[in-house]
Amino acid sequence: MIAPWEIDWRKRWQGHAPILLQPGSVTEVQTIVAAANRERVPLVPQGGNTSMVGGATPLPDGSAVILSLRRLNQVRSLDAEAGLAIAEAGVILADFHAAAAKAERRFPLTLGARGSATIGGLVSTNAGGTQVLRWGTMRGLVAGVEAVLADGSLFEGLSALKKDNRGYDINQLLVGAEGTLGIVTAATLRLAPAIAARAVAWVGVETPDAALRLLRRFEAAGDAVESFELLPAESLAAVLTHVSGTRAPLPSGHPWHVLVEAVTSDPDASNPTAFVERVLAAALSDGIATDATIAASEAQAEAFWRIRDSISDAERATGPAAQHDISVPIEAMPRFLIDAAKACDARFPGTRASGFGHLGDGNVHFHVRAPAGANRVTWLAEEAPSVTRFVDDLVVAAGGSISAEHGIGQMKLAELERLSSPSRMATLRAIKQAMDPEGILNPGKLLALAPQAMGE
Amino acid sequence: MIAPWEIDWRKRWQGHAPILLQPGSVTEVQTIVAAANRERVPLVPQGGNTSMVGGATPLPDGSAVILSLRRLNQVRSLDAEAGLAIAEAGVILADFHAAAAKAERRFPLTLGARGSATIGGLVSTNAGGTQVLRWGTMRGLVAGVEAVLADGSLFEGLSALKKDNRGYDINQLLVGAEGTLGIVTAATLRLAPAIAARAVAWVGVETPDAALRLLRRFEAAGDAVESFELLPAESLAAVLTHVSGTRAPLPSGHPWHVLVEAVTSDPDASNPTAFVERVLAAALSDGIATDATIAASEAQAEAFWRIRDSISDAERATGPAAQHDISVPIEAMPRFLIDAAKACDARFPGTRASGFGHLGDGNVHFHVRAPAGANRVTWLAEEAPSVTRFVDDLVVAAGGSISAEHGIGQMKLAELERLSSPSRMATLRAIKQAMDPEGILNPGKLLALAPQAMGE
Repeated sequence: MIAPWEIDWRKRWQGHAPILLQPGSVTEVQTIVAAANRERVPLVPQGGNTSMVGGATPLPDGSAVILSLRRLNQVRSLDAEAGLAIAEAGVILADFHAAAAKAERRFPLTLGARGSATIGGLVSTNAGGTQVLRWGTMRGLVAGVEAVLADGSLFEGLSALKKDNRGYDINQLLVGAEGTLGIVTAATLRLAPAIAARAVAWVGVETPDAALRLLRRFEAAGDAVESFELLPAESLAAVLTHVSGTRAPLPSGHPWHVLVEAVTSDPDASNPTAFVERVLAAALSDGIATDATIAASEAQAEAFWRIRDSISDAERATGPAAQHDISVPIEAMPRFLIDAAKACDARFPGTRASGFGHLGDGNVHFHVRAPAGANRVTWLAEEAPSVTRFVDDLVVAAGGSISAEHGIGQMKLAELERLSSPSRMATLRAIKQAMDPEGILNPGKLLALAPQAMGE
Repeated sequence: MIAPWEIDWRKRWQGHAPILLQPGSVTEVQTIVAAANRERVPLVPQGGNTSMVGGATPLPDGSAVILSLRRLNQVRSLDAEAGLAIAEAGVILADFHAAAAKAERRFPLTLGARGSATIGGLVSTNAGGTQVLRWGTMRGLVAGVEAVLADGSLFEGLSALKKDNRGYDINQLLVGAEGTLGIVTAATLRLAPAIAARAVAWVGVETPDAALRLLRRFEAAGDAVESFELLPAESLAAVLTHVSGTRAPLPSGHPWHVLVEAVTSDPDASNPTAFVERVLAAALSDGIATDATIAASEAQAEAFWRIRDSISDAERATGPAAQHDISVPIEAMPRFLIDAAKACDARFPGTRASGFGHLGDGNVHFHVRAPAGANRVTWLAEEAPSVTRFVDDLVVAAGGSISAEHGIGQMKLAELERLSSPSRMATLRAIKQAMDPEGILNPGKLLALAPQAMGE
């Protein structure tokens, strides 16, 4: 009966739990956590169960109880003037988008799982998405947090103060803690003005470096750009081959492509199309861009975005791949994309590596496709892990992060241990131990409480 | 010989230290901290010694050694394209402004002490200032932190990653920790585009509520506004009386005044003056504003700002006052300003309360002037503390913070304890204990390691 919540949505981590608790109030959450702490019963907090890294799935040993926050699903308040809303942990992202739109505002963070992902999970994983360039990740959109701490006491941080220097920022400590330091029950979230007009352009460029120079041109000219996505030719080709109804936005082929969106919230301001045209005209004449087109209609704009959003599906249809959600300093990304792909292709003959995604955030999804004809199950189980360690080593050498937006969960726990300094791991463990001394909050996620043998 | 560093710049906290250490490298800081931890010798980190709350001053018992970071004064790198610079802890803010300007960028945080305050202190106190409205406090401008932890190990967080979900955000934990969790040795800081043009306006309004409605009008129309400062008539009168060469920007008196600045970084974009004119014209015709003028020259803009920046000096000339750096949710500020002033005047006959400052941040400096003829020393010592407790109670009742931008230091330690939930204090203490088990990092600042009797 609770089977759907014992396994993650991609069916990669099969866990087991004796029971699933669904409290209907914050007080009930407090009662459960206090009892769990007293009896040393581990809890696995769960929202929409859409983690990419097994963060909301219980371990297979059946030691932990699932604590579902989905019944806490009220938008407690929404102040359009102030641009703030308080949403409970179980509010689904799409529902929150709708609530903001009803008040003629928007919540400017979105991602594929918006129909299932909940506010509590988004806060606890510091979720990202395609609008991070201008609005930041959840960390930047969270103005306050309410959470039940390990002893069952309530941390009340919902007051949305722009300035507050009363000691360590516990709100920010809870953001991205993956439920290991407290159970987020509600958050105060910032709303952005609704969009009055947008301009969506598709640009052909020769290199990732040219794409970055184009981004800097846009940034120097203003802050209207909300998305700046980079795609290699092969990602576009995969989409055109495998996704029906798609066609190339530009007449001839280019090695790299950029999808850029600029918006304005001011109905009286000049249309963002003029702004995008101006920057692109200069970039074309300076040789930074090779060709470009601006969507002439909302339908065309949607068609451009559909190409971007279909890459993962198209690549899945192409064959198995080791996927990596990584970031490096933005300035280092153009070189990383070229060098890391070359290094992977050389080290694992027959594979084909490429990255696509949020260039403006220094965050790409770096995928290494299996050699043609490889058996999916065998290759993913036997070959992919060494590919991942190889890619992660390259990321660390470039000063980057092996988890840009998906978190650590169960999936990256060993790699985090392997690649972090002992000082960093000791600090993470000390904080965990300080805030959850009995180790009842989502144990076995984000970090192992004792250093693992491989880390020694 | 070290006397100037044993007392704070306002000469409110006289401390004593046996010695002042001035390491010249991060490695030397590590050696000092490791030894101090081993021998349990407390360290007081110090930058420009400009704390408003005694945060950088040693305690009078002479138990602690001053660790000055001033010799770590290099800007290690500055990348104008990326808008990022790495500055060491001892770099003086004004020098950092100059370095950014040389690269045609700016570091958009400034405050009165910019000629002395250092980057390490600004990071460790999460400093604010007059440009927080658009750019945020230091917390929002810090992209990475390098710090020596209590055991002498180095936390290396300078990589400026826009997305990084590898566990708890230790960078953000160190921002605003007042040197009690680690010694910040360098930070990666975000730079903003240089200003191409600005418009500075002075507006007369009837109430703080009208001022807030004016702010919302500006926000709805775009994001060009960088400063939005509120002044009561009496603050303006004090300046006109006590500061030579100042004159009223508007012909007739108004109960409240707003100083607003809008900027653009795009030399091709329309001048911000047109934007400010458009919003002000609508506000005047809708009765939100009573009168308004836009500075016709840079000299006039500077004259407007001089009034704002002279308030503290003018009020000091008027007589002694209990001063409070407080914040409440922005929407609650108009009512708070009116109600709190009334309540103070009623509770402490003869005093006169008023607030001025960063309305757009929900942060005002709320000053309660002593009755006419009161003896400065006696009143500040005997009457001001109960005024402060009264004001702090009102702030807490309004869901606000008793320290908006100055921090806790020594000054507000007892009030923090008195007004925080036991759960919050326990969490702060647990984190401190986890990261500084020997209690050597700036002890007696921000929090007392053991709960104080009054807090029981």
